[in-house]
Amino acid sequence: MGSLSILLPVTSAFSLLSLGLLLLNPAAAAPHLPRAAQTLRLSSLPNHNSAQAAGISYETHYLMQRVDHFGFDVNLTFKQRYLVANQYWKKENGVILFYTGNEGDITWFCKNTGFMWDVAEELKAMLVFAEHRYYGESLPFGNLSFTDSKHLNYLTSEQALADFAILIESLKKNIPGARNSPVIAIGGSYGGMLAAWFRMKYPHIVIGALAASAPIWQFMDLVPCGKFFEIVTNDFKRSGPNCSETIQSSWKAIDRLTSTGEGVQWISEAFHLCNPLRSQTDIIVLKSWLAETWVNLAMVDYPYSSDFLMPLPAWPIKEVCKYLTDPNVSDKVLIQNLFQAVNIYYNYSGEANCLNTSQTATSNLGIQGWSYQACTEMVMPICTTGISDMFEPQEWDFAAYSDQCFLEWGVRPRPLWIPTVFGGKNISSHSNIIFSNGALDPWYAGGVNENITDNLVSIVIPDGAHHLDLRARNIDDPQSVLFARAKEVEYMKKWIEQFNGHH
Amino acid sequence: MGSLSILLPVTSAFSLLSLGLLLLNPAAAAPHLPRAAQTLRLSSLPNHNSAQAAGISYETHYLMQRVDHFGFDVNLTFKQRYLVANQYWKKENGVILFYTGNEGDITWFCKNTGFMWDVAEELKAMLVFAEHRYYGESLPFGNLSFTDSKHLNYLTSEQALADFAILIESLKKNIPGARNSPVIAIGGSYGGMLAAWFRMKYPHIVIGALAASAPIWQFMDLVPCGKFFEIVTNDFKRSGPNCSETIQSSWKAIDRLTSTGEGVQWISEAFHLCNPLRSQTDIIVLKSWLAETWVNLAMVDYPYSSDFLMPLPAWPIKEVCKYLTDPNVSDKVLIQNLFQAVNIYYNYSGEANCLNTSQTATSNLGIQGWSYQACTEMVMPICTTGISDMFEPQEWDFAAYSDQCFLEWGVRPRPLWIPTVFGGKNISSHSNIIFSNGALDPWYAGGVNENITDNLVSIVIPDGAHHLDLRARNIDDPQSVLFARAKEVEYMKKWIEQFNGHH
Repeated sequence: MGSLSILLPVTSAFSLLSLGLLLLNPAAAAPHLPRAAQTLRLSSLPNHNSAQAAGISYETHYLMQRVDHFGFDVNLTFKQRYLVANQYWKKENGVILFYTGNEGDITWFCKNTGFMWDVAEELKAMLVFAEHRYYGESLPFGNLSFTDSKHLNYLTSEQALADFAILIESLKKNIPGARNSPVIAIGGSYGGMLAAWFRMKYPHIVIGALAASAPIWQFMDLVPCGKFFEIVTNDFKRSGPNCSETIQSSWKAIDRLTSTGEGVQWISEAFHLCNPLRSQTDIIVLKSWLAETWVNLAMVDYPYSSDFLMPLPAWPIKEVCKYLTDPNVSDKVLIQNLFQAVNIYYNYSGEANCLNTSQTATSNLGIQGWSYQACTEMVMPICTTGISDMFEPQEWDFAAYSDQCFLEWGVRPRPLWIPTVFGGKNISSHSNIIFSNGALDPWYAGGVNENITDNLVSIVIPDGAHHLDLRARNIDDPQSVLFARAKEVEYMKKWIEQFNGHH
Repeated sequence: MGSLSILLPVTSAFSLLSLGLLLLNPAAAAPHLPRAAQTLRLSSLPNHNSAQAAGISYETHYLMQRVDHFGFDVNLTFKQRYLVANQYWKKENGVILFYTGNEGDITWFCKNTGFMWDVAEELKAMLVFAEHRYYGESLPFGNLSFTDSKHLNYLTSEQALADFAILIESLKKNIPGARNSPVIAIGGSYGGMLAAWFRMKYPHIVIGALAASAPIWQFMDLVPCGKFFEIVTNDFKRSGPNCSETIQSSWKAIDRLTSTGEGVQWISEAFHLCNPLRSQTDIIVLKSWLAETWVNLAMVDYPYSSDFLMPLPAWPIKEVCKYLTDPNVSDKVLIQNLFQAVNIYYNYSGEANCLNTSQTATSNLGIQGWSYQACTEMVMPICTTGISDMFEPQEWDFAAYSDQCFLEWGVRPRPLWIPTVFGGKNISSHSNIIFSNGALDPWYAGGVNENITDNLVSIVIPDGAHHLDLRARNIDDPQSVLFARAKEVEYMKKWIEQFNGHH
C-alpha cells in the first residue's frame, strides 16, 4: 500500500443525510466507483417508532414548474410533487408549515418529520411537504435527468427555492382561505439550509424558518474543516471506554493485514463482505465505508430505537462501543471486533447474509443528485488530522476534489458561490430564523450555534444527534429536546402573532 | 383609419430612461418596426450643466464574470466594465458608493450621476460604477449578444445582481484597505430598482441602498396602470393654460387630417418629417412618437437647462406649452403648433433639418437589451383612459403584448416573476433602503412613496422629475431636492455609523 500516500477517510461530498464519500485518490477514480460509493441509505420501511406513523395522512399533488426560473430560453416544465395534510388546519388563525424538501423522496421526509405532525393541532396548521427538484418523483427530465451536465443544469438550490416560492403562491391562490395564511418554512439538514435561505431570500413569502441541523457555515473557511470528525470522534469517546482509540487503531490494522494476499482474503471473510476485496481500490472503499459508518452512527445516535438511516437500537454508538473496548488486541481480533460493531449498524435486523461496501441503496433516490450538487454549489470542506480525531489524516484538497467532479460530471465546483449568494457569516440583517443543532451531530460543526440577534436565534440540544427535534415525540426524548421543541413552537407562535398583528 | 380600432398610445415596453414604445397593434407589427420605434435618446454630449463635468476622473477596469451564475453547464465568461474613482476615498472611515448600472453605457450614467461626485468628499467615498451586462461594452457574446433568445438567456436582473455581488467581493479582495469598507448601492430608474433589489437580496454585501426614481411597484396590478400617463398629463396641465387639452385634441386632429392622401402629405411637411408618412403604420408610429415625446419631457422636466435625454431649456414643458395654448384652433394650426412644441424637444440646438419618427439613437446602446428585458421580466403594465389623461385610450393588453414579444424575441414574458422574486408590496422585512421619487416623474406612479418602516423610507421631491436628486448640484435646484439630498446623505451616514459600530 506504500504507493498510496493519501488513503482514507477521503471525506468530502457527503449528502447530509446519506453519507457519500467522494474518493479523492486518483487511483480510486474508476469511472463509476465514486458514484457507487456514494450510497444513500434511506430506509423505505415505515417508521415504527413514530407515534404518529399510523396517523399520517396526506394528499399527493403535483405542480407544473418551469425547469428554468432564471432564464427565458428554455421553456420546459416538469411536475413537482408535494404533499398536503389539511386536517388540522384552521383558516381563520392557523398557519401553513411548509417543509422545504431536501435530497430525497419527499414521502420519506414527511414520515420522518414527526414534529410537524405533533404540533399541527396546536398550531392549527396545514402541513405541506414540497419535494426538491431532481429527487423522488420530481425529475425535470424523467429518466434523462442525470445523463449529463446539460440535463443537470437546473439542479441548484436557487432553482429549488424558486420552486418553493411559486408553489406557495399557487397554494395561496388555489386553496380557499389560504390567501392570507402565514407560512413558516421548516427543514432539516440540507432541507434546513433551504428553510433558512428561503426566509433570507423570500421573506415576503415565509414569515420565519426553523432550520434544524442546517450546516449553513460548512463552506469555504467559515468553520474549521476538522471539526466535523472531531464531533464524530467525541461521540465514540463518550460512548464507551477505549472506543475511539480502538477505531483509531483499526486503520493501521487494516493496512497491515491487507499487505499480504492472504490477509486481504482473511479480512474479506472477517467482514462478511458480499464481494471479496480484489484491489487496492477495494481496500480504500472498505475504509471509506467504515468511516462512513461511524459518521452515520454519529448522525443517528438517538436515545431510542429508531429507523432513520437504518433500523437501530437506542443510543446505537453505545452498542457499537461494547465491541470496541481494547485497541491493543491483535490485528485480527481487532478486525473481528470491528465487524461486530459495524454489524450493529448494517444488520440490526439480523437479515443480512453479507455486508456490501459498495452497497447500492434500496432506491437510488438522491445519490446522483447530491453527488452533482456537491460538485457544483455544495462544496463543504471536511478534513481529518488523525490527532484530534480517530480517523486517518486527510487534508482538504480542493484541486483534487474539483478534478474528480470534472471527471464525474463534467463540471467544476464554485466553492465561493454559496457564501456569496447566501451571506456566509454575515447574516445579521435577516430575521425570524431558528437554527437548532444537536451537539452530538457531526453537522453541528457547520451550524449556527449562538444567537446572532433577537430574531436570529440558536437552540443547541446537548443530547441531540441529527435534527432530533424534527422527529416525532418519544417517551425516551431527553429533556433538552423537549425544551428545544417548546422553544421552537414559542417562536413560531410569536411570528404568527406578529403577522396577524400586521394584517 | 376606421379599421384600426386600437391606435395609440400603445405604450408598454418603456425603457425607463429611453422611452421605447412597443406597438401592440398587430397591423403595426412589421418585422423591425417596433424595435426601431424603441429609440434610445441617450445624448453622447458631455453634460455641460454639471459643475463636476470637468472634474470627473475615473479609471476603467474590467472583471471576468461568468455568463451564467445560476447554472454550471455553460462555462463561459465575459468582461464586465466598471469605473473606479479613488481620489476622495479614505480607507479608514470612508465608504464605497456603488452605482448599480442600468440599461446603457456606464460612462454615461457616471457622467449623469453628479450627486455621487458631489458627496464623494464629504463621505470620503470611493465611487464605483458597474456596467450592467448586455449594455455598453459588457456584452457576454460580443456582437452576437442579441442574435437570438439563446444568446440573450443570461440577460436578467438576477444575473446582473450576481455580477454586482461578485464585483464587490473582488474589489474588497483586491483593493488594499477596501476589505472592511462599507458599501452603499446607488442607482436611478432601472438602476434604482437594482439598487433596492440588491440590498434586499444581498444585505451582507451592501449596508444600504439609495433607489432613486425606481418604480419597483410598476408590476402586475400593484399600482393602477393609468397613473403613469395621468402624471404626464398633470405635468402639462400645470405648465400652461390649455396645454394638456391641446395635446388631447391633437390625436383626433391627426386622424382627421390623415384621412385624406393630401392631409397625410401636409402633415408630413408640417412636422418636417425626414421620411414622409407612407402607410397607416407610419401614422401609428407618428402618434407613438408624439406620446413618447410628451413622456420624455415629463421625465426630464428639470428646473435648469440640461442635457439628459436631449439638450433642453429649463422647465422644458413650460416652453413646450407656450405653443399649446388653444385646443380650438383649426386642425392645421393645431398641428403647426404641435410641431413647434416637439421641435423644442428634438431641435433645441437648432441643428436638425428634419425630424425622424423612427429616429435611430445616436448609439444603439440599450435598445435591444431593454426590449428583451421588457419582454421577459420587466413587464410594467401601463394604460390610458383618454379621460383622466390627455392620450388616446388604450387598455393594458397582456395577451397582445406577449404575442408581440414572442414575434420579436421568441420568448414570452412572465409578468408575475418580479413580484414573486422581489416581494411586490410585501417588503417590510428589509431595511436601509431610501426610495426617492420626484412627483413630476411619470415613474413616480410605480414608486414607493410612503415610509414602510423606519429603515425603509420614502423621500418625495414635489418639484422633481426623473431622479433629479441624482443629478449634480445646480444653482437652480429647488429647495425640495436640496432637502432630499441632505436627507439621503444623513441616512447614508447613519448606515455607515451603524456599520462601524459593529466592526
